[in-house]
Amino acid sequence: MRVPSKYIENAVDQIASLPGIGRKTALRLVLQLLNRSENEIQQFSDSFLRMKEHVKKCNSCGNVSDFETCSICQDENREKSIVCVVEDIRDVLAIEATQSFKGIYHVLNGIISPMDGIGPSDLNITHLIERVQSQNISEIIFALSATMEGDTTNFYLYKRLKEYDLTFSSLSKGVAIGSELQYADEITLSRSILNRQPFEL
Amino acid sequence: MRVPSKYIENAVDQIASLPGIGRKTALRLVLQLLNRSENEIQQFSDSFLRMKEHVKKCNSCGNVSDFETCSICQDENREKSIVCVVEDIRDVLAIEATQSFKGIYHVLNGIISPMDGIGPSDLNITHLIERVQSQNISEIIFALSATMEGDTTNFYLYKRLKEYDLTFSSLSKGVAIGSELQYADEITLSRSILNRQPFEL
Repeated sequence: MRVPSKYIENAVDQIASLPGIGRKTALRLVLQLLNRSENEIQQFSDSFLRMKEHVKKCNSCGNVSDFETCSICQDENREKSIVCVVEDIRDVLAIEATQSFKGIYHVLNGIISPMDGIGPSDLNITHLIERVQSQNISEIIFALSATMEGDTTNFYLYKRLKEYDLTFSSLSKGVAIGSELQYADEITLSRSILNRQPFEL
Repeated sequence: MRVPSKYIENAVDQIASLPGIGRKTALRLVLQLLNRSENEIQQFSDSFLRMKEHVKKCNSCGNVSDFETCSICQDENREKSIVCVVEDIRDVLAIEATQSFKGIYHVLNGIISPMDGIGPSDLNITHLIERVQSQNISEIIFALSATMEGDTTNFYLYKRLKEYDLTFSSLSKGVAIGSELQYADEITLSRSILNRQPFEL
């Protein structure tokens, strides 16, 4: 489908450059934008520029923030000795949404993935080791994806950090709460049998 | 999920204002944008502003164009007496992609839909009647959606236009080519039996 306007074509290219959005969807979105007022489109465009201009990475954990240090690292009530290592800012948001973690985070900004050409040096790992050396950290929680890449990254981090006096833990794996057993995949189910927990009433 | 930055929050709001994009997807897209360079984000934002600034509606058919008159209406080789009435610019693109229509278009910019509060006066209908009066048009093809709203709009247009010396036609309806009969819906199948066509070898 050729659009009869190079300006629309260009806007479609930009929207279609976002992950998971094809050109047909992009065209639908762009034509919806085109129907908005000039002022609304100005606000739309400005929001991205202002975000790029103002959003910083927290100088401690790597989380996004409008300030030099993010609100979690600044919070006096958080347990600063427990650091939860995550791949991505969205993982911080997901864990924060549970309201069940009171420690702080370290955002790796990716995961070791040789297939995608991402090695340890591409990740925010050196700074994690600096934090372990300089801050009073007692426990590291590995909260990476339960995939081959996640396991590789966990193993690499463990090797780099094991010389320090730290407790290591990782998220528990098993059948999802509220899900039916017959739909659980075999590997998860077999691991949840091997790692069975004491029954609690 | 609360994002710890009002600038990201704002960008997420803007992306989530696009049709069919929820806040979780919007956040994923926005964080991907955040990783781009300042220059890339400038280009991203500019594309929408420049589109709004430069794209016009064709003064004849209502299609989008970078010029006063769109490339289809300007094309000397198109059959100017056959006008295909469509709901939306995307329908023009879809029909053009088939390369099997050599007439010109009229974009209504919507469809009569009382449920959504869209009446005839909200659509580009007066201009269609002006075109019929002033241009040398002999056939009107109704190419609106095969829905209740589409039928209502067809009927309304027919009533407004029947006093002029015009042939009216509409897209043929029936089972889709390449589809299996058992998956066709009942109404389509029953209409395709009633409207059966002479067998051609």
